[in-house]
Amino acid sequence: PLRRKHDKRSLVFADLTREEYLQVQQYMLTLKDLDISTNSLTKPSENFLFLIELSLPKKADALAYLDGKGANPIREATVVVFYGAQGYIKEYVVAPLPYPTYHRDVTMERYKTELPITARTVTIGEYDLVFKFLDEVFSKMGKILKESFDVGPNNKLQMFEQMPRGVRSGDRKTWISFFRNMSGIYIHPVGFEVLVNHQSVNASAWRVERLLYNGQYFDTVKDLQDKYDKGFVKKIVYKQSPDYGSLKPRNKPLQIGPQLFYGEFKRYSISNNHVVYMDWSFAFGLSSLTGMRVFDVRFNDERIVYELSVQEAMSVYGSLTPGMMLTKFLDSSIGIGRFAHELVRGVDCPHEASYVDTYRYIDVPAPVRVRNSICIFEHSMGQPLRRHFSDFSHTSYGGMMNSALVFRTITAIGNYDYMWDFIFYQSGSVEAKVHATGYIASSYLVDGNLKYGHQVADKVLGNIHTHFINFKVDLDVLGLNNYFQTKDMEYVNTSLPWMPDHYAMVPQLVEKQLKTEQEAALHHDTKTPRYLHIASNKTNRWGHQRSYRLQVLSFTGDNLPESQAEERAMSWARYKVAITKRKDLEQTSSSLYNQNNIWTPAVDFSKYIADNESIENEDLVAWVTTGFLHIPHAEDIPNTVTVGNGGGILLRPHNYFDEDPSIHSADGVYIAPG
Amino acid sequence: PLRRKHDKRSLVFADLTREEYLQVQQYMLTLKDLDISTNSLTKPSENFLFLIELSLPKKADALAYLDGKGANPIREATVVVFYGAQGYIKEYVVAPLPYPTYHRDVTMERYKTELPITARTVTIGEYDLVFKFLDEVFSKMGKILKESFDVGPNNKLQMFEQMPRGVRSGDRKTWISFFRNMSGIYIHPVGFEVLVNHQSVNASAWRVERLLYNGQYFDTVKDLQDKYDKGFVKKIVYKQSPDYGSLKPRNKPLQIGPQLFYGEFKRYSISNNHVVYMDWSFAFGLSSLTGMRVFDVRFNDERIVYELSVQEAMSVYGSLTPGMMLTKFLDSSIGIGRFAHELVRGVDCPHEASYVDTYRYIDVPAPVRVRNSICIFEHSMGQPLRRHFSDFSHTSYGGMMNSALVFRTITAIGNYDYMWDFIFYQSGSVEAKVHATGYIASSYLVDGNLKYGHQVADKVLGNIHTHFINFKVDLDVLGLNNYFQTKDMEYVNTSLPWMPDHYAMVPQLVEKQLKTEQEAALHHDTKTPRYLHIASNKTNRWGHQRSYRLQVLSFTGDNLPESQAEERAMSWARYKVAITKRKDLEQTSSSLYNQNNIWTPAVDFSKYIADNESIENEDLVAWVTTGFLHIPHAEDIPNTVTVGNGGGILLRPHNYFDEDPSIHSADGVYIAPG
Ligand SMILES: [Ca+2]
Ligand SMILES: [Ca+2]
Ligand SMILES: [Ca+2]
Ligand SMILES: [Ca+2]
Ligand SMILES: [Cu+2]
Ligand SMILES: [Cu+2]
Repeated sequence: PLRRKHDKRSLVFADLTREEYLQVQQYMLTLKDLDISTNSLTKPSENFLFLIELSLPKKADALAYLDGKGANPIREATVVVFYGAQGYIKEYVVAPLPYPTYHRDVTMERYKTELPITARTVTIGEYDLVFKFLDEVFSKMGKILKESFDVGPNNKLQMFEQMPRGVRSGDRKTWISFFRNMSGIYIHPVGFEVLVNHQSVNASAWRVERLLYNGQYFDTVKDLQDKYDKGFVKKIVYKQSPDYGSLKPRNKPLQIGPQLFYGEFKRYSISNNHVVYMDWSFAFGLSSLTGMRVFDVRFNDERIVYELSVQEAMSVYGSLTPGMMLTKFLDSSIGIGRFAHELVRGVDCPHEASYVDTYRYIDVPAPVRVRNSICIFEHSMGQPLRRHFSDFSHTSYGGMMNSALVFRTITAIGNYDYMWDFIFYQSGSVEAKVHATGYIASSYLVDGNLKYGHQVADKVLGNIHTHFINFKVDLDVLGLNNYFQTKDMEYVNTSLPWMPDHYAMVPQLVEKQLKTEQEAALHHDTKTPRYLHIASNKTNRWGHQRSYRLQVLSFTGDNLPESQAEERAMSWARYKVAITKRKDLEQTSSSLYNQNNIWTPAVDFSKYIADNESIENEDLVAWVTTGFLHIPHAEDIPNTVTVGNGGGILLRPHNYFDEDPSIHSADGVYIAPG
Repeated sequence: PLRRKHDKRSLVFADLTREEYLQVQQYMLTLKDLDISTNSLTKPSENFLFLIELSLPKKADALAYLDGKGANPIREATVVVFYGAQGYIKEYVVAPLPYPTYHRDVTMERYKTELPITARTVTIGEYDLVFKFLDEVFSKMGKILKESFDVGPNNKLQMFEQMPRGVRSGDRKTWISFFRNMSGIYIHPVGFEVLVNHQSVNASAWRVERLLYNGQYFDTVKDLQDKYDKGFVKKIVYKQSPDYGSLKPRNKPLQIGPQLFYGEFKRYSISNNHVVYMDWSFAFGLSSLTGMRVFDVRFNDERIVYELSVQEAMSVYGSLTPGMMLTKFLDSSIGIGRFAHELVRGVDCPHEASYVDTYRYIDVPAPVRVRNSICIFEHSMGQPLRRHFSDFSHTSYGGMMNSALVFRTITAIGNYDYMWDFIFYQSGSVEAKVHATGYIASSYLVDGNLKYGHQVADKVLGNIHTHFINFKVDLDVLGLNNYFQTKDMEYVNTSLPWMPDHYAMVPQLVEKQLKTEQEAALHHDTKTPRYLHIASNKTNRWGHQRSYRLQVLSFTGDNLPESQAEERAMSWARYKVAITKRKDLEQTSSSLYNQNNIWTPAVDFSKYIADNESIENEDLVAWVTTGFLHIPHAEDIPNTVTVGNGGGILLRPHNYFDEDPSIHSADGVYIAPG
């Protein structure tokens, strides 16, 4: 007996099906003059169909459809082509799905600029050439590699790259650090790094520009070899390393831990990309680039959130060694959703959870199905959502267990695994949470490097870094016309009415409405009102503006200073919360191109607020930043634990209802004496 | 197959047994010259045995015993007697238990001052007289009460008191607000408040000093009556109120929610007051005054925490009406643990949890057993504690579900229910969490009162208030000799070694050691280093000081300005974290007497740091404050929900171990291809 009905209109937000990906791919291949390849080993100098994704409908069209006032919007795909032959990148809209008949170049419309080919993500095709290039380089230095790292026919080093790839626009010069070929390579640096210039789309023009060996720099391979042979180099002498990165259990199970079970049947239901749970319903999707997202989130059939989505995961590292010194990861440029792999039952989510497959097309020759990459389950939080015991009068007890619906993906982006949770509570709150786990990034410990972190293994430095995560929160509180309100307290010296000569400091409520985008861009390190609300000007039964409050849980470090050229590509991270007037063309706070053209980012979030538009009575979006400062320590080996390493946003009703909606939950328990 | 063994030495921290309470009570009654009564209706003018509690052993003695270097310390009780006949309060140590033979007045030793009788908590004996006094007052105003509130033989009003009771030391003048006799009286104010002076221990001297009716003040009952009869009063005309405070479910259960179950048997064990769980062991107790506490918390047999305990729960309210205008609740003066009532299976804790009875003696004629007032269970958090999926190299998966032990009490202190959790994680972290639920306090809505909150029901204002919670964290990191360290990041403009003319802002680690109590008293509203550590000067395998980090999760409002006379009684709330050199005589940050003699508090925490002692290489205690600003809203009716309304502290190993100890957990899962 579900309380809500499924609605097929949720498909307006559904990711492309396998068939749709194939049709779009085929359509692009019919455009012979574009000379596009879909081969996974397409060279950088050729034209490569990198990405096919759902192109989100215009909000007005989607709303009209959802609300029964308009037709189903034409379904469109976004296609990204890396034109190595021409030296640029193009984005197209291809439509109508499932059988496209036309395409439109939307690059300028979306980014107001051309996209140079150096802005592209490194493809499997390019990696293939990088590996070959490195093999070639390594083949000339067998002795050093053998003596230092035991490299041989059966033992290759593994690599980890610095990003951004250089210091200015157009650069594609990557410091590649090398790691032992063991479990958890990321914590096995060997002390050898190579700066590869792969700016040209022609691999034949690539070259080694510098090498770092045991803390010493060399201009060329030959330079290193000569000095090594002459004894001018402090040698690293190979010795076997313990397998400290292994995740193999070191003890046999005693007995299984506590498990979740559903006494009767599941109290939620999934149909297509639509979920219903108690009073909640929502549509979901998984963007290959930005990751998990939900749309048209309703409570009791009333839309509260139009879109809640992951936008970006960014980290800035510190080190003395070049591989980590400049590193600033912008994960949506590699693809966050792309790495939503299969979830492991009983570990990543409870055994009893529901698992959903996803399909994607990013840097592949054909659409990929990823089995069980989303999990959905109702969880007992093990604590009451509310309760009261009364013994002073009306002796009685009322309460209810906090059971909530969890919607989860986990994205293993190289070393790190981010766990993304959207949680739907029976009290009308929605929470977005992120936790980090997996391997830290590390560097070889050389003199002076302890300023940048802590030693976590023999000759291994865990590098200090920030985690900044951006969420898009498009609340629609009773429609599109909303206000941004703040509430806080202040002590006011007040005369006591019954003894007017006596004064006391009494807390008062302070309410404000922020009226422009710049007023509402709440910088880190500034005092911020404690309550932040997206409010309607409709009132609840008690005359208060119906609103949802944004409660942010964050342990972020410092954002990169604005003086740095790379900062504009992550300018969303300046703000705890920023409120913008919503636009279809301001869909994301970052972009696929921000990592590799970080100095001239295709999306600079600060431009969304530069025009300082009014945010009164407008369709508002809150861009919320959370995260944590990570100073790695021994307990990050082998893996960072989720406990304490995360952040989140809670969206809570605040005078939205006339009373707590959980009072209507069938989970309520009441005990009266006798 | 438990990993740890129980240890009876935990009994050194055990609450008194029923027999011990009885023996102490009996011993006190043998002291005829003290003329003490244990009758529950003992008058304020008589001498009343208010409290019997465990007197904690001196730490040095307890440690010697626990570590096999000393005898079992003599077991002692603290006894509090309210000497109404003499006008003071005395605290005694009575020993040895279980059969006391001597007592010692420790009042001066503990508080450095005499305790005036006006500092006492209102007892059941005093309430009995207050009720009679009010009956007497009300009997003279039957008409007003009938017409305004339908008061009659079968319908009495309920009361809720203002605290502190006045504006200066010695005052005992309480504004009593009246509420409808319905479920959740706290949200049913009628608009009638009476200022009762009950300063004298002789109830015959008590009098009404002022009345408030519908926003209008009156000097005497007669004054109100005269003006009421003459029509000079804006009358409240009784009308029946809907039962919006009821917690009765409004819907029938659909089906039961998800449940926790233990596949095999429980992986923890409780013996006496000792718990073992995986690598953890600890002793526990429940103070009638301060609430839940654990001692001698060990991981892998190594003591990490000597004491982790709740200290105080404080709230400051704002209102235009006197009942809430000056209100500052200091719950440990009423007794936090005192209100740890029976927990409801399946709502307050999972069905499968273990439940423990407690015994106490506070404002009672005989010891009271409270059944199932502590629950202990292992919970599956529904998410991995750690995990990594690798597909780039060494394709494999390793992870483990986050199963942790929860130790919980819930204390329903009048309107509010605080849920207290100590959580023990397999990664070596301990978390202390508090959440608030139950009823908000409210006042009658009169003109001008909306400055102090939001309307939440007909004629009802939910008053703005703060929640400040203090925890004592006596970490002993590898013994008593510890340091207080901070860590944070800073951007440093750095020349790139491989292109020295290019500079970049690179994050560096900033470590400091704070050396005195005043340096280490971290005020709210000041920028605080992001990582706070209690460190040993012993190093881990990688040469770093072994430490535990305190990660505080807090949403507090503003503390009362220090200009206010009442502030010294809550001076712990000035600080997010304050570190003191530990002393047996600085056992708590508040006291039983702070509420009713708030202007001359028996314990002023700020004095602990006034002597500005060195905190280098000393036994340190961290006093940690958390909480949240509460601006009540319609969804607080009928009950505040726990989601988002809380705070906590996470104690995390940071270079304490050489690697994450959870790697040794038998819950680890590893999957390799093929
Ligand atoms: Ca704008
Ligand atoms: Ca909106
Ligand atoms: Ca001191
Ligand atoms: Ca200590
Ligand atoms: Cu990290
Ligand atoms: Cu509250």
